[in-house]
Amino acid sequence: MKTRAAVAFEAKQPLEIVELDLDGPEDGEVLVELMATGICHTDAYTLSGKDPEGIFPSVLGHEGCGVVREVGKGVTSVAEGDHVIPLYTPECRQCAMCLSGKTNLCSAIRETQGKGLMPDGTSRFSYNGRTIHHYMGTSTFSNFTVLPEIAVAKIREDAPFDTTCYVGCGVTTGVGAVVNTADVRPGDTVAVFGLGGIGLNVIQGARLAGADTIIGVDLNPDREEWGRRFGMTHFVNARETGDVVAAIVEMTGGGVDYSFECIGNTDVMRQALECCHKGWGTSVIIGVAEAGATIETRPFQLVTGRNWRGTAFGGARGRTDVPKIVDWYMDKKIEIDPLITHRLSLEEINKGFELMESGESIRGVVIY
Amino acid sequence: MKTRAAVAFEAKQPLEIVELDLDGPEDGEVLVELMATGICHTDAYTLSGKDPEGIFPSVLGHEGCGVVREVGKGVTSVAEGDHVIPLYTPECRQCAMCLSGKTNLCSAIRETQGKGLMPDGTSRFSYNGRTIHHYMGTSTFSNFTVLPEIAVAKIREDAPFDTTCYVGCGVTTGVGAVVNTADVRPGDTVAVFGLGGIGLNVIQGARLAGADTIIGVDLNPDREEWGRRFGMTHFVNARETGDVVAAIVEMTGGGVDYSFECIGNTDVMRQALECCHKGWGTSVIIGVAEAGATIETRPFQLVTGRNWRGTAFGGARGRTDVPKIVDWYMDKKIEIDPLITHRLSLEEINKGFELMESGESIRGVVIY
Repeated sequence: MKTRAAVAFEAKQPLEIVELDLDGPEDGEVLVELMATGICHTDAYTLSGKDPEGIFPSVLGHEGCGVVREVGKGVTSVAEGDHVIPLYTPECRQCAMCLSGKTNLCSAIRETQGKGLMPDGTSRFSYNGRTIHHYMGTSTFSNFTVLPEIAVAKIREDAPFDTTCYVGCGVTTGVGAVVNTADVRPGDTVAVFGLGGIGLNVIQGARLAGADTIIGVDLNPDREEWGRRFGMTHFVNARETGDVVAAIVEMTGGGVDYSFECIGNTDVMRQALECCHKGWGTSVIIGVAEAGATIETRPFQLVTGRNWRGTAFGGARGRTDVPKIVDWYMDKKIEIDPLITHRLSLEEINKGFELMESGESIRGVVIY
Repeated sequence: MKTRAAVAFEAKQPLEIVELDLDGPEDGEVLVELMATGICHTDAYTLSGKDPEGIFPSVLGHEGCGVVREVGKGVTSVAEGDHVIPLYTPECRQCAMCLSGKTNLCSAIRETQGKGLMPDGTSRFSYNGRTIHHYMGTSTFSNFTVLPEIAVAKIREDAPFDTTCYVGCGVTTGVGAVVNTADVRPGDTVAVFGLGGIGLNVIQGARLAGADTIIGVDLNPDREEWGRRFGMTHFVNARETGDVVAAIVEMTGGGVDYSFECIGNTDVMRQALECCHKGWGTSVIIGVAEAGATIETRPFQLVTGRNWRGTAFGGARGRTDVPKIVDWYMDKKIEIDPLITHRLSLEEINKGFELMESGESIRGVVIY
């Protein structure tokens, strides 16, 4: 079949809207019609050419929502007509990682996914006979995409596509880091570094978990209002505050119970660790640093009881946890609507990248 | 009263055996007659002058065992004749740290202890009218020492002094790191970096906790036999093995569940983290690095699910947990006797430091 898609033919070039050939689903695969997709910093990172694992040409996009249109042989967990969110972190429920019960990092299709291919080692996308690669196992910048069954989460049908797509990455990453990875409890104190889309979702995750004090840190004073809207109780302007760590330790009488780095800046990762309370404070790295960058601290920080951790996809097991997060949205336990600041057509997708990079949008969404 | 003691009059000089004046216990304090004391790397570190918080002149030593000879006013938890282990990490059961239930780092007397003084801001030791400082709140290189009540753990009376003293630091630090901090469970895989006294205690802690695979790493091939004696199942000679991390990842099919750094080398701390299993592996830093040294890794290591932690005094709440560890020793769940390789008189204490620094002793103990 044919599908409209925004293709990354090479790094550092705008995406091109073309009509691709798309092969139907093989055994264990499903064909999904995307209804909406978010544009995320990770797409921009790969497009920039800085991602050492970036593959071109490819169809980027990993934050979508759509409807199953066809299922391959042997598919049992979803059917035609089901509403689904593609999962860049699949959940096979069979591999050693899934069965450990200790991580969401399913390894079933990791190798082929990293190569921009489906589990059988081939691509479903082509353009004038030339292979176009998949991306993060999702490729949501195509109106239609083919996915392994284990990489789709079935969600309720009353959830609107243009907001729920954000659960495919940003919402789950932020909220999940709080409830799955950190396990914040009522009364805890929390610091959030970077109040972009992820940081705001961490804030609302902390509110959902009952945190008492939620400190937001950003260089941009405009983000204070955003933070407060989602539950932030205190704002630290990092540009005006000499020593951010000392300020947070002072505000909290010794440091926070949990901190979250939502930027990808290794210097900030150190601050996030060191503003944690002696004895038990845990810092969770969410942001993706540039390839090769390293984090650093004195071991004394850990020996005196701080914990340094990280999270990917908010520690969420996609098929199990993503539908719950959609429920929380529909039940108004978390908010998504105000975060979707821009809606665009596929033809406007490059403008969506610009809005994100200028900091103008929290989340721009392409509506098919 | 008078007491014999080995005094560190200044850094980099041998200890001098002299007779000190010792004031009796004030309110809330106890006078303890030490029967034995271990000699530990931490004492050597301070004596070397490299410890930026080292204070001279002082009575070093922090790994003792003895008998309460007098109690000050208001002391209720111990009485004359009780057998006790001095605690460099006290347990007041009243401060915010103790009451959190999340850490053993009692803060009740931290400030004065760090200054080499008793909680009232004075020292009980003097020599020819000159103040001699306490050290780590314990000063076990003196035959008699005065301690706050909250800094002694009452233990059973049938435990021999000359081996049980090791519970005052090394045994608790190693075994406690496994059972309190890491919480190793039956079937887990463990790697231990550095097979000195602490590392061997980590190994026997892992055996006690039911670990299946216990990998020991050391540069010294003679330590293999020591490791196996305490439960090590595999040995990695770090001098002969090109890439220790890759070797451990291969041996364990992906990395260990828990690793422990027992050296204080920041490069090894990185190896210990990176040999942990993706998704859940936890590395615990026990070794004390030189002042100013930093640890480093790529944040990707944490984002993919590894945890970096540390521990002090094995996460043990001294008054609560130390008596249990003594019970484990007496019940033969852990071994101490073979680790006490050298017994010395107080007059031979400097020789004890030499035996330790040459690697000849596992633990040298001074018998009063």
